[in-house]
Amino acid sequence: MPVTLSDIRAARRRIAGSVIVSPCPESIPLSEITGARIVCKLDNFQRTGSFKERGARNALLRLPPAARRRGVVAASAGNHALGLAYHGKLLGIPVTVVMPEYAPLIKITTCRRLGANVLVEGRDFIAARARADTLAAAHGYTYIHGFDHPDIIAGQGTMGLEILEQVRDVDAIVCPVGGGGLIAGLALAVKSLRPRVRVIGVESTATGNYAAALRAGKPVLRPRRPTLADGLATLTVGANAFALARRHVDKVVSVGEDWIALAILRMVELEKTVVEGAAAAPLAAMMAGRLPELRGKKVVLAVCGGNIDPAILSRIIEKGLVHDGRLTRFTAVISDRPGGLAQLTRVIAESGASIKDIAHDRAFSGPDVSAVNAVCTVETRDHAHIAALRRALKKNGFPLLVAK
Amino acid sequence: MPVTLSDIRAARRRIAGSVIVSPCPESIPLSEITGARIVCKLDNFQRTGSFKERGARNALLRLPPAARRRGVVAASAGNHALGLAYHGKLLGIPVTVVMPEYAPLIKITTCRRLGANVLVEGRDFIAARARADTLAAAHGYTYIHGFDHPDIIAGQGTMGLEILEQVRDVDAIVCPVGGGGLIAGLALAVKSLRPRVRVIGVESTATGNYAAALRAGKPVLRPRRPTLADGLATLTVGANAFALARRHVDKVVSVGEDWIALAILRMVELEKTVVEGAAAAPLAAMMAGRLPELRGKKVVLAVCGGNIDPAILSRIIEKGLVHDGRLTRFTAVISDRPGGLAQLTRVIAESGASIKDIAHDRAFSGPDVSAVNAVCTVETRDHAHIAALRRALKKNGFPLLVAK
Repeated sequence: MPVTLSDIRAARRRIAGSVIVSPCPESIPLSEITGARIVCKLDNFQRTGSFKERGARNALLRLPPAARRRGVVAASAGNHALGLAYHGKLLGIPVTVVMPEYAPLIKITTCRRLGANVLVEGRDFIAARARADTLAAAHGYTYIHGFDHPDIIAGQGTMGLEILEQVRDVDAIVCPVGGGGLIAGLALAVKSLRPRVRVIGVESTATGNYAAALRAGKPVLRPRRPTLADGLATLTVGANAFALARRHVDKVVSVGEDWIALAILRMVELEKTVVEGAAAAPLAAMMAGRLPELRGKKVVLAVCGGNIDPAILSRIIEKGLVHDGRLTRFTAVISDRPGGLAQLTRVIAESGASIKDIAHDRAFSGPDVSAVNAVCTVETRDHAHIAALRRALKKNGFPLLVAK
Repeated sequence: MPVTLSDIRAARRRIAGSVIVSPCPESIPLSEITGARIVCKLDNFQRTGSFKERGARNALLRLPPAARRRGVVAASAGNHALGLAYHGKLLGIPVTVVMPEYAPLIKITTCRRLGANVLVEGRDFIAARARADTLAAAHGYTYIHGFDHPDIIAGQGTMGLEILEQVRDVDAIVCPVGGGGLIAGLALAVKSLRPRVRVIGVESTATGNYAAALRAGKPVLRPRRPTLADGLATLTVGANAFALARRHVDKVVSVGEDWIALAILRMVELEKTVVEGAAAAPLAAMMAGRLPELRGKKVVLAVCGGNIDPAILSRIIEKGLVHDGRLTRFTAVISDRPGGLAQLTRVIAESGASIKDIAHDRAFSGPDVSAVNAVCTVETRDHAHIAALRRALKKNGFPLLVAK
């Protein structure tokens, strides 16, 4: 049974009051850096930090009474598990989740805290899925697929209905694509009601499942590849999702990991909001110039989730600072006698840069035993400041070995 | 002329449409960790990232035409400067800002980008202020004080009006205290309309200007002290602000820097929102148990701003991970012969921890030249996981030197 607009409307009534109508504010600074009029649909503010609650609650409420009593099971490395766990608990439906071993620690811990029965099993998703199927057969659980179950797709489509109401003059919606559940539901809703609104998908170049499906004419199973956008790292797009998306989506582009990382930093700096990699992909595509036709248009970015591991966020921020010229590292050759370091640090301080770390590297400093390499990490204002600092160091007799 | 409720109401009409009515959502996860029903007034979503726009725009609009043409000046290390710069540009009023040398680079850069004439001058705020006064005298600029000008206080009070409308059953509002402008206006608005709503201030133990003013019976000038909550690091509370706050505020507590850092991390993790130190102080006070009387009550936290330097945010996240037992460092003594490190890393891997960094420390490893210290930084699940890892290391013959 294919999903229809009335399924999405019914889903909306079903989940109303328990899944928030997330805010959808315009962003002046993101508009400035992209050249479009950017609006962010902030589903990272859902209780479990992602849009997945929409489909999860809809699917749970669609179960017949006997199936509700027996409970549900799913294999998921992340947000689908959280959405099911939370709404299962609210509705009194037992939820079992099989999470593959590579699932982020924070999602495993949170899923347990939300009350689900969590099994961490399987080197890959296929093994986790097999375990979930075994449990379903043994206990009579209903298996709820994270992105291809029609009730899930219908639930995700509610985001499209909300956007059309919240942003009446929207020209385009840019949406991440992993398994395809979100864009399938969203595009169905949007194109049924307002066919002239463009719906554009973005996937990571590291995954590319949608592009592969387009090439093959059908979903293909592909090896999992590491990506910052772990929410997009499915093995394939779903068959139902692909059939819908293919009909309704205007186009799907891909964007590199570097741009996704930088988009995460820009959301933190400019929008004061925390997003996971998948949710940053639409902004990344705009920043990378992949969607030049949207210049000057009113564009809604589907900010689908905020469940990023804080340790990874911290690393992304540091990488972003290097990209922006606000953090730099260079190796200066200094004299190994008293005063060598004092002179180096004085020159750095006078340039207005702030030293974060200095490491001495003696053994690999070359044949001159009176010289030592000082590996310096410093905070700077921008790339021009870095250039000025390097000039000052050279002028003061500090040869630089490497600079990045 | 003392500020009145009708000044605040007039300010609200004046700034309507140009300063956003920021969202004020309830937070289930923050409620869980504090035991109160927490609602966050998210003024970090203002265009320049803080509540300061409220007062800035009100003060600019109150200027007579001639004063508007001449322009305004202010000494400010941060958000007041941004608010003035942005609204000055929108209104066509020339804005000059003197920022002391310690002002965060990001705020200086942003202020320039917003179109203000920015001077970075003065080792401390007093010197910056003196320079601003000189400019005011020379050019006929109007000086706009960041937290004690009556129009500024009236503007900040609009946050109180919004909260009362957005959260009808509010029991208490917890608000950061730096110069006192926000809490003075907010408390005046709230206590005039709903005297039974408690208004509580929070300052950092590192600043403590309000407590000092209470002890002395009047504002006192104190040396600037470094704090994560740089928005609170004023030299004193304002005289007008203190007179109002003293009459209307129920109490002011202080909270340590460690709690402020941890509250910033919790806002990122649980609320998916980026806040600066000052804005985290109310949550920090709740987490630190400084406000036990609010247990079970509906509490609005005034999340006043989000302008935190990304480099500092990154460091705070890492420190928070250490606090939570998700990042740990220990020094293990290993054999300096081939295989020593291989064996150590195998034990760590088998425990489920993930190695981030290993440094070898030979020279300071003690008298046994066949032994070397390996300083290991690893990612763990929690404190119990760290304890298990340490037991496994000892059992496998790796003495630990230091552990934290």
